[in-house]
Amino acid sequence: MYIIMGLPGAGKTTILNEVSKRLNDFKIVNYGTLMMEIAEKEFNIKNRDELRKADITIQKSIQKRVGEELSSMKGKVILDTHCAIKTPKGYLPGLPFEILKGLNVDGLILVTADINEIIERRKNDPTRQRDKDDYNSLKEHDDMNRFMLAAYSVITGAPCYIVNNKQGKLEEAVKEVIGILE
Amino acid sequence: MYIIMGLPGAGKTTILNEVSKRLNDFKIVNYGTLMMEIAEKEFNIKNRDELRKADITIQKSIQKRVGEELSSMKGKVILDTHCAIKTPKGYLPGLPFEILKGLNVDGLILVTADINEIIERRKNDPTRQRDKDDYNSLKEHDDMNRFMLAAYSVITGAPCYIVNNKQGKLEEAVKEVIGILE
Amino acid sequence: MYIIMGLPGAGKTTILNEVSKRLNDFKIVNYGTLMMEIAEKEFNIKNRDELRKADITIQKSIQKRVGEELSSMKGKVILDTHCAIKTPKGYLPGLPFEILKGLNVDGLILVTADINEIIERRKNDPTRQRDKDDYNSLKEHDDMNRFMLAAYSVITGAPCYIVNNKQGKLEEAVKEVIGILE
Repeated sequence: MYIIMGLPGAGKTTILNEVSKRLNDFKIVNYGTLMMEIAEKEFNIKNRDELRKADITIQKSIQKRVGEELSSMKGKVILDTHCAIKTPKGYLPGLPFEILKGLNVDGLILVTADINEIIERRKNDPTRQRDKDDYNSLKEHDDMNRFMLAAYSVITGAPCYIVNNKQGKLEEAVKEVIGILE
Repeated sequence: MYIIMGLPGAGKTTILNEVSKRLNDFKIVNYGTLMMEIAEKEFNIKNRDELRKADITIQKSIQKRVGEELSSMKGKVILDTHCAIKTPKGYLPGLPFEILKGLNVDGLILVTADINEIIERRKNDPTRQRDKDDYNSLKEHDDMNRFMLAAYSVITGAPCYIVNNKQGKLEEAVKEVIGILE
Repeated sequence: MYIIMGLPGAGKTTILNEVSKRLNDFKIVNYGTLMMEIAEKEFNIKNRDELRKADITIQKSIQKRVGEELSSMKGKVILDTHCAIKTPKGYLPGLPFEILKGLNVDGLILVTADINEIIERRKNDPTRQRDKDDYNSLKEHDDMNRFMLAAYSVITGAPCYIVNNKQGKLEEAVKEVIGILE
């Protein structure tokens, strides 16, 4: 299993869409979607807002069930998830030890971009509501992503790759990701 | 259990004193005090200096016993400890894997501050003897705190929060901490 | 066991040669050499190039066998290895959790140097072929080394020390390393 993560606004979804067009043999599993399915079915949680506001203990239980589902997946899988999730209580690790130890990870990919470029992109996207995104808080989030990425890599033994998705260079970023997956 | 850690001089103790006045239902456990009690009772170590100079193996044994005590604590507990402890042999993790895996952690809080502000505060405090605190060594310590914080978070699955205790903004920092605990 | 790691070009080997002259009671084990021996004997891999290009799964199996050999070593041992290994698939942890949990680590040492000094040194060394070493990629590697170092320290409970091997100050760096080992 390959795991792809990204700083919000860095372009992970755009890259992943391009990758999935070119590599048909990979199944892309979205952690959030899988989590929501389990949250709805097993914890009676109706939507993402309710999930986000749920107690940390419940969030951990759901994460555990997601981990069990992921452990049982076979074949070429790309897990689309978050590295460090920014919550009001701090950065929640997208892949805590309890989940990681059950997964067979071939590679970890973090999509990031220049902080100032992300701030510019967000300004031009009026359809999305995001957190107050000043430089320092985005920098802190990007740093935490990198620190947790290193911990994920050490725990799984899988190599970790940082893709810098530069403005106007999407094709380069897509090729870097495909180079890892092939 | 919540765990609060800080860069020496960043103001963790001041914040914690304020927090304990306002949140009466939390029991604050100081790791160093608990460690010293165990070191004295079980390892015949007389004072903190002797403890600091003790062999790494003995320090690890004491840490293990502290971990056992902490695992057995119930209710609302704030553990007051260090993130990365600067020793002559390098940065010792305040919360190694062996201890962490036994704890039920709800949140991790790191109190830090601007490095230059810490240097200024230390100059004005003639009662405390501290290590040579030039910018680079404080920066390295602050970085290592953040890297280890991320590892603690990944291992425990608990969210981690970095409080920047700005000069003259103590009340803001206290409110941030209370916001996490409540 | 002490573990010494370094950014390529930072001078780890030079420091280690000096250390071994002065401390005769330490046995220095090179991870790469041990790995190559096992790769040749047990996996029929002929040389380092073949090893580097081998599948991640095979590299992991070899790492596991190396870990077993290391766990069984007694006495004063310095393990000479890499912190984060730069590969085309990303940074591979030199000491993944599976290996670390079997080792009894007394200390972790990372040898690094100013990025610009490393770039200068490489220019003056025409006998060695190295990767394209621009500032950003060396900085990313140095950062990843530090993040993984912190994770190794948290997992083993051993202190980690960063030696900054400054240009023209080799003796200082050697003394720092000896200070940790003694």
